Amino acid sequence: MLPIVSIVGASNSGKTTFLEKLIPELVAKGYRVGAVKHDVHGFEIDREGKDTWRLRKAGAEVIAIVSPDQFASIRHTDAEMTLQEIAARFFWTEDILITEGFKRAHFPKIEVFRSAREPKPICSQADNLIALVSDDEVNAQVPRFSFADPRGVADFIENRYLGERKKRKMLVQLDGKQMPMKDFVEDFVMGGIKGMLASLRGYDKPRTISIHIRLGEDD
Amino acid sequence: MLPIVSIVGASNSGKTTFLEKLIPELVAKGYRVGAVKHDVHGFEIDREGKDTWRLRKAGAEVIAIVSPDQFASIRHTDAEMTLQEIAARFFWTEDILITEGFKRAHFPKIEVFRSAREPKPICSQADNLIALVSDDEVNAQVPRFSFADPRGVADFIENRYLGERKKRKMLVQLDGKQMPMKDFVEDFVMGGIKGMLASLRGYDKPRTISIHIRLGEDD
Repeated sequence: MLPIVSIVGASNSGKTTFLEKLIPELVAKGYRVGAVKHDVHGFEIDREGKDTWRLRKAGAEVIAIVSPDQFASIRHTDAEMTLQEIAARFFWTEDILITEGFKRAHFPKIEVFRSAREPKPICSQADNLIALVSDDEVNAQVPRFSFADPRGVADFIENRYLGERKKRKMLVQLDGKQMPMKDFVEDFVMGGIKGMLASLRGYDKPRTISIHIRLGEDD
Repeated sequence: MLPIVSIVGASNSGKTTFLEKLIPELVAKGYRVGAVKHDVHGFEIDREGKDTWRLRKAGAEVIAIVSPDQFASIRHTDAEMTLQEIAARFFWTEDILITEGFKRAHFPKIEVFRSAREPKPICSQADNLIALVSDDEVNAQVPRFSFADPRGVADFIENRYLGERKKRKMLVQLDGKQMPMKDFVEDFVMGGIKGMLASLRGYDKPRTISIHIRLGEDD
């Protein structure tokens, strides 16, 4: 799976503003970046009365809208999708996923902290905190970067998580849930699949292979 | 791939209004419906100044937003995504995909037609027109349904496209493009994959299997 790094912090600590500086640094390094924002209060992306809203109200589970240069989809979910599911289903072609929020998920976190707003950071190393972005003197056991140094943070993320991005990887999901697999089993299954497909016409050194199987009732 | 049926018609012919009646009929029959709207003029789903807009402007290729009960994503595309790609990547768990628009795609079409607005239907059998929804007398070689009969249209779609929905199916994509495969090859590859995975712990009669492989530089 692709690396996931979460930018967390108290409300109004400046997470989005910092992301607006961090993402271009990662893009400038040549990485394809995906972003996920967590909105605990819900969000309104299709407004009442718009066509997408009308189709969803009619009972469509997923609504997509397509134009020549963009694609958007909205889906109702019974439970909040996990970052892992989201990464696997929607961000497979990106190199890294940066999230805003998701304090409770177990992915590595960089906290944006201002002592004028909070007495101390909301996350610790126990929460998988890997760095702080703060202009204040903070007594922390993780590296600290100033708000003016998004490039430093990008370098830090690159060194820590993007060195192995060229390594091949496989993700198998059964009914949308990741199937755990030891490394040698992963190599074996991946080799088997690649071997079968590579013997067929139309296989020409792809970078990615996606396979979706819908099983029948008697499988 | 799941069946795709497009509802087409001239501007303001009542496509969305008819879809608002058709989708609930399909849902009532127990089908999971996805909807795709084509918007040639582009659309604005994240408004200027909103966080999603800011993250995209910063260079993220895909932005997602997650709340407890919904998930939305917006992605920039270099070229308009085809319905086939959209169906394969985003609608694999649905039973049928109903589109609004996509007159130029080659999927089966049902045209919503009002003679007060247009001299004649905009599609013909050459465009894969399979039915008309119209209260007017129309000289057509396809079945005609009245606007008051969305159930009749739902029955027609069910008989024609949903009979085989329980059949197992596999879709293989290399770098996002569908790999063509003869039936017996599909059976062979699908059997091989299922056989490998079924021998592992954690495999318990799934309905769907998704596999994503990212190949390394030396593969």
